[in-house]
Amino acid sequence: MIPSSPSQMRDWMYDPLFTTPEMAEVFSGPGLVRQMLRFEWALALALERNQVIPEGVAAAVHTIAEVDLDLEKIARKAVDAGNLAIPFVSSLTSRVAEQSASLAEYVHYGATSQDVLDTAMVLQAREGLTFLQHDLGEICNTLVPLISNHRSTMLPGRTWLQQGPPVTLGLKLAGWLDALQRHRDRLQEVRARCIVLQFGGAVGTLAALGDSGPAVSRDIARIIELPEPSMPWHTHRDRVVELASTLGMIAGTLGKIARDVSLLMQTEIREAFEPAGEGRGGSSTMPHKRNPVLCSIMLAAAMRAPGLVATMLSSMVQEHERGLGGWQAEWESLPELFRLTAGSVHSARQLISDIVIDADMMRGHLDTNGKIALSEAVSFALAAKVGKRNAHSLLEQITHTAMERKVSLREALIDSPGIREQLSIEEVDEALDAQKYLGSSEIYIANVLAKEEQG
Amino acid sequence: MIPSSPSQMRDWMYDPLFTTPEMAEVFSGPGLVRQMLRFEWALALALERNQVIPEGVAAAVHTIAEVDLDLEKIARKAVDAGNLAIPFVSSLTSRVAEQSASLAEYVHYGATSQDVLDTAMVLQAREGLTFLQHDLGEICNTLVPLISNHRSTMLPGRTWLQQGPPVTLGLKLAGWLDALQRHRDRLQEVRARCIVLQFGGAVGTLAALGDSGPAVSRDIARIIELPEPSMPWHTHRDRVVELASTLGMIAGTLGKIARDVSLLMQTEIREAFEPAGEGRGGSSTMPHKRNPVLCSIMLAAAMRAPGLVATMLSSMVQEHERGLGGWQAEWESLPELFRLTAGSVHSARQLISDIVIDADMMRGHLDTNGKIALSEAVSFALAAKVGKRNAHSLLEQITHTAMERKVSLREALIDSPGIREQLSIEEVDEALDAQKYLGSSEIYIANVLAKEEQG
Amino acid sequence: MIPSSPSQMRDWMYDPLFTTPEMAEVFSGPGLVRQMLRFEWALALALERNQVIPEGVAAAVHTIAEVDLDLEKIARKAVDAGNLAIPFVSSLTSRVAEQSASLAEYVHYGATSQDVLDTAMVLQAREGLTFLQHDLGEICNTLVPLISNHRSTMLPGRTWLQQGPPVTLGLKLAGWLDALQRHRDRLQEVRARCIVLQFGGAVGTLAALGDSGPAVSRDIARIIELPEPSMPWHTHRDRVVELASTLGMIAGTLGKIARDVSLLMQTEIREAFEPAGEGRGGSSTMPHKRNPVLCSIMLAAAMRAPGLVATMLSSMVQEHERGLGGWQAEWESLPELFRLTAGSVHSARQLISDIVIDADMMRGHLDTNGKIALSEAVSFALAAKVGKRNAHSLLEQITHTAMERKVSLREALIDSPGIREQLSIEEVDEALDAQKYLGSSEIYIANVLAKEEQG
Amino acid sequence: MIPSSPSQMRDWMYDPLFTTPEMAEVFSGPGLVRQMLRFEWALALALERNQVIPEGVAAAVHTIAEVDLDLEKIARKAVDAGNLAIPFVSSLTSRVAEQSASLAEYVHYGATSQDVLDTAMVLQAREGLTFLQHDLGEICNTLVPLISNHRSTMLPGRTWLQQGPPVTLGLKLAGWLDALQRHRDRLQEVRARCIVLQFGGAVGTLAALGDSGPAVSRDIARIIELPEPSMPWHTHRDRVVELASTLGMIAGTLGKIARDVSLLMQTEIREAFEPAGEGRGGSSTMPHKRNPVLCSIMLAAAMRAPGLVATMLSSMVQEHERGLGGWQAEWESLPELFRLTAGSVHSARQLISDIVIDADMMRGHLDTNGKIALSEAVSFALAAKVGKRNAHSLLEQITHTAMERKVSLREALIDSPGIREQLSIEEVDEALDAQKYLGSSEIYIANVLAKEEQG
Repeated sequence: MIPSSPSQMRDWMYDPLFTTPEMAEVFSGPGLVRQMLRFEWALALALERNQVIPEGVAAAVHTIAEVDLDLEKIARKAVDAGNLAIPFVSSLTSRVAEQSASLAEYVHYGATSQDVLDTAMVLQAREGLTFLQHDLGEICNTLVPLISNHRSTMLPGRTWLQQGPPVTLGLKLAGWLDALQRHRDRLQEVRARCIVLQFGGAVGTLAALGDSGPAVSRDIARIIELPEPSMPWHTHRDRVVELASTLGMIAGTLGKIARDVSLLMQTEIREAFEPAGEGRGGSSTMPHKRNPVLCSIMLAAAMRAPGLVATMLSSMVQEHERGLGGWQAEWESLPELFRLTAGSVHSARQLISDIVIDADMMRGHLDTNGKIALSEAVSFALAAKVGKRNAHSLLEQITHTAMERKVSLREALIDSPGIREQLSIEEVDEALDAQKYLGSSEIYIANVLAKEEQG
Repeated sequence: MIPSSPSQMRDWMYDPLFTTPEMAEVFSGPGLVRQMLRFEWALALALERNQVIPEGVAAAVHTIAEVDLDLEKIARKAVDAGNLAIPFVSSLTSRVAEQSASLAEYVHYGATSQDVLDTAMVLQAREGLTFLQHDLGEICNTLVPLISNHRSTMLPGRTWLQQGPPVTLGLKLAGWLDALQRHRDRLQEVRARCIVLQFGGAVGTLAALGDSGPAVSRDIARIIELPEPSMPWHTHRDRVVELASTLGMIAGTLGKIARDVSLLMQTEIREAFEPAGEGRGGSSTMPHKRNPVLCSIMLAAAMRAPGLVATMLSSMVQEHERGLGGWQAEWESLPELFRLTAGSVHSARQLISDIVIDADMMRGHLDTNGKIALSEAVSFALAAKVGKRNAHSLLEQITHTAMERKVSLREALIDSPGIREQLSIEEVDEALDAQKYLGSSEIYIANVLAKEEQG
Repeated sequence: MIPSSPSQMRDWMYDPLFTTPEMAEVFSGPGLVRQMLRFEWALALALERNQVIPEGVAAAVHTIAEVDLDLEKIARKAVDAGNLAIPFVSSLTSRVAEQSASLAEYVHYGATSQDVLDTAMVLQAREGLTFLQHDLGEICNTLVPLISNHRSTMLPGRTWLQQGPPVTLGLKLAGWLDALQRHRDRLQEVRARCIVLQFGGAVGTLAALGDSGPAVSRDIARIIELPEPSMPWHTHRDRVVELASTLGMIAGTLGKIARDVSLLMQTEIREAFEPAGEGRGGSSTMPHKRNPVLCSIMLAAAMRAPGLVATMLSSMVQEHERGLGGWQAEWESLPELFRLTAGSVHSARQLISDIVIDADMMRGHLDTNGKIALSEAVSFALAAKVGKRNAHSLLEQITHTAMERKVSLREALIDSPGIREQLSIEEVDEALDAQKYLGSSEIYIANVLAKEEQG
Repeated sequence: MIPSSPSQMRDWMYDPLFTTPEMAEVFSGPGLVRQMLRFEWALALALERNQVIPEGVAAAVHTIAEVDLDLEKIARKAVDAGNLAIPFVSSLTSRVAEQSASLAEYVHYGATSQDVLDTAMVLQAREGLTFLQHDLGEICNTLVPLISNHRSTMLPGRTWLQQGPPVTLGLKLAGWLDALQRHRDRLQEVRARCIVLQFGGAVGTLAALGDSGPAVSRDIARIIELPEPSMPWHTHRDRVVELASTLGMIAGTLGKIARDVSLLMQTEIREAFEPAGEGRGGSSTMPHKRNPVLCSIMLAAAMRAPGLVATMLSSMVQEHERGLGGWQAEWESLPELFRLTAGSVHSARQLISDIVIDADMMRGHLDTNGKIALSEAVSFALAAKVGKRNAHSLLEQITHTAMERKVSLREALIDSPGIREQLSIEEVDEALDAQKYLGSSEIYIANVLAKEEQG
């Protein structure tokens, strides 16, 4: 039963659930090797342009695709080598040697294993960021009309899982959009700062290239369109960690959204629902079930990302010119973060595109417990006359009595001499009108939408 | 380029590096499904024995192996279902229906998705623990003679990365063994407490089975040889978290061993080496390199395990009878911990089996800096005459002078009137004899070996 | 504004919220120093008994209490020394010297800083465990009658935050007790394995004590009633990490309980409540609020513990005979875990002692959505006649129709020809009787209570 | 022994070691309350300016300092309230009432607890960032001349803890500076995005202020010089998490620096040392010890930060308008990160200011093992003639032979016919000249210094 090849060693059965095919492809074995080939080709081309190696190497490398290499064998050989680059270079060199033994002498010339592995990872991350930025953009695009449509859909605000004064669904959604806008800003910054070339040779001096190092480095950077950093960064990993923590924050925001939706979707609340679909969210034993499946993906990603970010942070303590253990700990951790974040973003996009809103249920819950949650509104109406402390204290007493006696807040208010001395029944009713107690909600929504328009 | 099937979505290229084929198989897709089939078979058999379902279902299920199911399709369908069990049961039912439509009606009768998924995970964990326990046993077996052989191999003790008084290599290795013995005890306890059946139906009451629930549960437990818990534990996850944290601790101890070996293997120290081998630990650009490859695996595992354990702990907050997000966060995290720990244990076994010791280098380093690290020995020889504080203070002064003047401790001592008033040259030399300053090392070694003998 | 003394440097304002005074005291500065004094006293006494040092030192140390030492100064001096033990020993030695300069020469004789710091931490942990074990015992004691009283209090089972078939409150509480029983077992095991003496001298050989090491060690262990380990464990930290992860698991279980209660306490559900009290759970602006304050403490602890456990695990990679960075990272992390866990256990004890149950609301929610959550019961009643798949499929259709049409499940069932062909109205009503759909709940409760009685 | 007051509950003894007095003060109890007072004053002033409350409240609040409030009592009362704001407001109101009962009615008018707690935390963070930015600036300033001075100080590059080709100390230090420059950029960005006002009232609508909400909010923002966000962010915590992860990355880089220095400071290497000082880095038992104390602080911070960042990330999943558990988990976690990072930055500043370099030892280690680490240089000299593969393969053979036979690389090269056919002795010596094998080191240094000059 022992797997005869590395490609059978991994449990891939959860992948469709937790990631997207596109992101999985970017961070697949072939996806990694494709970027490694791209680095080796750019390296050869840059070396040729600077007359460090004879012409023809780049062209030879260019003919070789990841499918031409025995990835299973490379994976197996990595056990002895301690990294994928050594058997990869060896395999690539053999394929080039089939074309020309002399050109094969110049494959991977002057580079170190970490140059090709780090740059390939950066190229994967660049593609991964593009997917994420696109999908987040789509979610934002979807949110804009949804917010507009629900500017006046009222539901209870909820704090500490208890009802408070009303909010609008538009405001709630604007809060989501506001956070996503910040993430989009972060992704732009992190892309600018962190998506850079790695090229330093054995100890980060490019000594093997003599005086040609800077020119070769500049040319590689141009060829694969990556900015050059001030210097190699083999053991300074803040760039990859910044990538990781940005992904972690996105997963966190989406986890918050999923928590909100799944709470709204509780059987006893039923204010919002994940989009339904054939076979979606069923149970193997309970026929009536409609489980919040998309939310479960987003919540799971939000729970798994922090541990992965912590691993990336812990791994920053890398020794001298190239580290031991820390670098290796990144190899699967950063890809896993990209995969999970992509899965969460993808689920969020589905969720937000087709979320089902029950505005009647939302409106109805404003009356739960006899509008008790509007106590603040009455308190402030009263505070204008007797001061905030007195008002708060009186309302505490009235609301607790109302809850014990199970009567509506209105009834309890009208029964209270302390209230009736200060407020008329009309004023009480005015205070209990949720519509009139939405404060600055509209202005906040406008702020967020305006930022989206400026884009 | 987008993968056409789930099995192409995962990067498996690092698997040979970070895990073992055996553990990978246990936690592979087919490995999981095999255990799920085992649960469904045992469930059917137990139901039959209790006359809940007609005879024949278990036999029909028994004919079906994981290769008979379309795992790719199950993986894809899990996206809608939110878990693997629903499409798995559906697929299994179809295969049984090919034999008998009427028997197919009774597949997965009375169980919930989490029953089959949790029990399958427990069965995987049981196999995984067996591998780990075996390999740890082998490491311990290997350490026993190694410790005996190096009972008198001396090297500098090192604290805060600075040399201190001597230890023996035997003592250092006994420290490793001592820790591994505790881990073996923990694995036994965790196996007894945590490897138990999960079977509770929709909400953990087995209501669908009426009065037959307890008998069916007991029979399943017997059939698959798993103890029955006091009650179902769908949302009480301390058992799986205890498994996870035990694995994390093992990875931590092996990380400590790898740190020790990699420090001993530094170019400037060269006291111990990983076993050499064709192609092992080379560099893509530095011909002389012999990198500590096994240590890098063990260190990387020790850096990755804490984040995964933290995820498992975070996921304990699961709602009501079955949780949302927390359970899902476990699905890939616990397997990953098993995989990484197996890889680390496997590397440790190789490392310890064939570690190369340079006893001369070890012995030689006791003389580094003119035996300065033996200052404590002299200090205590002196303390017997002038008190500890006076002795410590005088030795501080002498050692700092010796280091500044770059003379040996012996020379500095003999030059010191404060010393010469109290100690003869013979007494100084006696104090500087590392062999005589090993204290209780032998006794500790004996303690640890005795425990190993008792097993 | 800069604090003139270390004791002003720390924000203690959240301590009453997140921990208990008792546990805070154990892990306070004076609490730590008290245990350090205890170690030094036991060390001196053991050395005297073995004639290594003159009589009188232990008696002199014994006269000194933590209040006799200038803790502020010790804290400040630790900055240069790198640990608290060095200025502590220096301060202690000065106080002993006031009694006798010659006896002062023998304070801390033969021990290293880590011996006193680790043993003191173990002694603190022993006290801490005693508090936790006591409080967990009290919670279990409180749960027993609560479970008995609520054996037949029915409420909806909830999975994925959706209603499912009924459970009893007794069963839900039995699940809590079952998990706490396992934690109590773990605490006993961890106490037996991890609460041991640390005494090894500079590099773990006790070389400074010559042949007397083992006898002195044995005597210290007897005096402070700590088992002796096989050998010193300065850089093998699995014991303290096992302590940490056990605390983390307890915090996790209590977080799960808090999640359950806070969900039951939602305004829309109101099935259970934290005990009320003057000023408890109020809002600064919403008079009606009754916030789940105890739950917030327990949830916060469950969110903070995983990161601290991860830190402890990461810190296991300690170098050679005494480590650099890892040991230091433990100093505040393990105490923080004890503090947080104590706060959570304390909150749980209050919560469970005085939890307010609204059995009517619980019972009432079984009828939510027209008893839709009992679909499984009908499905199994039907399955006996038409097979499980057919039944499940028909019920899926009926329940979805019922939800869309907003009619009760009973009505939809009676309207369904497929149902009426197989089930009489009496049979439908029987299936919809929650009381008759509790399965093995009683048996599970009995199992858990029986285990508690055996205790 | 139980502490009679909250201020005695906390172990502060490690604070001088792990943080700075300045940062401790910012995040102390009084420091927090001072910022809370500042918010309440600004709120009152803004309300007055907008005629929401009568004049005089702000002036009355302004007269009250944190020392005027009973912080111990506030801390104790927080246990019932669930947060500090409620007893704080109550205490503040009482003090204002002593001046004027009628004005006291308007304290904290329209705000919610989280408004004052979050804004106070933001104000603390602003001060904390200022300290960190200043100290990082000073470190950078110190590094510039150090780099210049060591542009040609050569030492072995080290990869995987093995020697490789030479680098210069200037280059190594430039790598540190390069990373710190990025952190300074990040701090600027995070300050701009995350240091903003929190003001939304009960559910983030400012409903209690009617139409005045936006104007009051704008005025508060002006008064305390904090930008206004688009909308309140009570449950969108990405801002505080971004702060946390930026601190975590800084701690990570400093951990890397500490790892480098502590490795260089090993007894067997002795290339660099922490600044010495009276009582610094001593041992309680080993007189010669000079422990890397500053490094231990920096490493411990790097080990503790990841767990705290993970906690902050996990806490992002906050419910609806104000969360339960997640917000509370932040209260001590973010301050702890500021404290630890400040301690690490402070230690780094001391370390880098007065680091002791032994350039002779560095230079000398280039000759370790007979210059074996220069194998790459020879390999590339040879590659120009026989191709890279052939050269690499020959050099592998020669270096392994040299190491086994314990002869110098030069000797082994000269003994090798394969070498002598291609390279003259002069060419061999040229290749073995470390000075000529520094590649682009100078250019990288210039890049980093140029960026520093531009600021």
